[in-house]
Amino acid sequence: MLGLDPDPAALWFEAAGSGSSASAREVAQLTADAVERHCRLAIEAAGPFCVAVKLQFACFERLGGPGIDAAYAVADAAREAGLLVIADAKRGDVPVSAKAYAQAFLGSTPGPFGDVPGFGADALTVNPLLGRDALEPFTAAAAAAGAGLFVLVRTSNPGAADLQDLPAPDRPLHERIAELVASLGAGDDSACGLSMVGAVTGATRPEMLDRLRELMPRAVFLLPGVGAQGGRVEELAAAFRPHPAAGLVTASRSIVSAYKERGGDPARAAAEAAEELRAAAWSLV
Amino acid sequence: MLGLDPDPAALWFEAAGSGSSASAREVAQLTADAVERHCRLAIEAAGPFCVAVKLQFACFERLGGPGIDAAYAVADAAREAGLLVIADAKRGDVPVSAKAYAQAFLGSTPGPFGDVPGFGADALTVNPLLGRDALEPFTAAAAAAGAGLFVLVRTSNPGAADLQDLPAPDRPLHERIAELVASLGAGDDSACGLSMVGAVTGATRPEMLDRLRELMPRAVFLLPGVGAQGGRVEELAAAFRPHPAAGLVTASRSIVSAYKERGGDPARAAAEAAEELRAAAWSLV
Repeated sequence: MLGLDPDPAALWFEAAGSGSSASAREVAQLTADAVERHCRLAIEAAGPFCVAVKLQFACFERLGGPGIDAAYAVADAAREAGLLVIADAKRGDVPVSAKAYAQAFLGSTPGPFGDVPGFGADALTVNPLLGRDALEPFTAAAAAAGAGLFVLVRTSNPGAADLQDLPAPDRPLHERIAELVASLGAGDDSACGLSMVGAVTGATRPEMLDRLRELMPRAVFLLPGVGAQGGRVEELAAAFRPHPAAGLVTASRSIVSAYKERGGDPARAAAEAAEELRAAAWSLV
Repeated sequence: MLGLDPDPAALWFEAAGSGSSASAREVAQLTADAVERHCRLAIEAAGPFCVAVKLQFACFERLGGPGIDAAYAVADAAREAGLLVIADAKRGDVPVSAKAYAQAFLGSTPGPFGDVPGFGADALTVNPLLGRDALEPFTAAAAAAGAGLFVLVRTSNPGAADLQDLPAPDRPLHERIAELVASLGAGDDSACGLSMVGAVTGATRPEMLDRLRELMPRAVFLLPGVGAQGGRVEELAAAFRPHPAAGLVTASRSIVSAYKERGGDPARAAAEAAEELRAAAWSLV
């Protein structure tokens, strides 16, 4: 899966810096336009070797309203290229606000001028700290939209251990969250046996995947942390055990910035890196 | 504090529904304009009795790019009215993405056309599940901006108990998070003795506040859940113990929708409800 976390200071092309007399809003618009073009090029280059794009919402949100417009446009471009769209937004809030986030990413919002369509994600990453009642608006919206969720179970950063690995009290907190994920997805059934409630399980601690797979036999695992963060695809077999589609390996910098190590054209380097990653993942199933 | 979580289906005025032939983008723009006007009216009515506004980002985000533009405009209006602006966005991600969220809400983003200014929040709510390294980009950005953070410690929804109250292993997880908050804020010092790293501590379980105050003696407590969720201001004295500014009572529906119970003009009802809440909070210090 192609991760898009665009950095306007590291685009694939030279953007003309004519913003010195522009207003703050104009600078945001110019930057968002450039970010959108960068993402379109990355989709064109690496898309054919991927099943989905994952938009890191932080990178779009930092460009204000124009940045969110760009995220919507990039999602349209990905869908036109036949790719699924995953909103990596890690949202979570009390139930009434979780419902509003679900409208933003998976549904629509009724108002006096008609329904305002949301982002239309095929899947959304969500944060479980607020508990089951705060996740239920997301599962309801996902079910209505035929979309999926990825609940943060064990993230890929070193600090994940601070809370997620605490014994709580007899097993790590992330195993408790895994049980919650399995129970939230218990009702739904698909032809392939996988659930619409998946899990973010970082690729940086592969030794945890066996146990997590045991606790969540039907969840799709979203596996960030391959490449730049040190995770290795070869160690992720447990994720793919129930089904070839039960693991989604996501790589952002190691595809989009591949030209920095490989040299040459950014698009060609990205295509090569994506193709190698795909081959490595498929060799596991 | 005035909570703004605008529902386009429940505005203070009749919005003309001429959107039947409009495109999705036009419907979003019309709706966002109406939401912005609603929020400006609420600030005008209840602002004089408040110290800050709290924008529930989910409610703006569900209107796409125009919704985020509206959030920026509402923040400007609040600042012009002399109010602090709290972004209630509950963001949290791995360090590299947390840095991008910090740019979005507390800083700015460098790019080829110059710096793109962010939302400019005076404080931001953040989710601690990803651990200390994922919070540090927020504390760094807040320190640079002279802004504050509110870390979710114990939220106000019933499901909060599912994970936040688990014994982990010898004390509840929320007490562990409280210790993390105290340690993150240990370095900074203000004239009044309060830290820039505060805590979201729901008003719905006031019996927890004594212990949380003990663990976080210098943190400002953001206290949601008063009113519609059942919390009572009279029970929140522990929050205010170190300083009159050490507790921030936030109310959204019980101010903005006060006219539904009190009758009459929405603006007058909101002003009355805000004034009563202020009096109740001040009577504690």
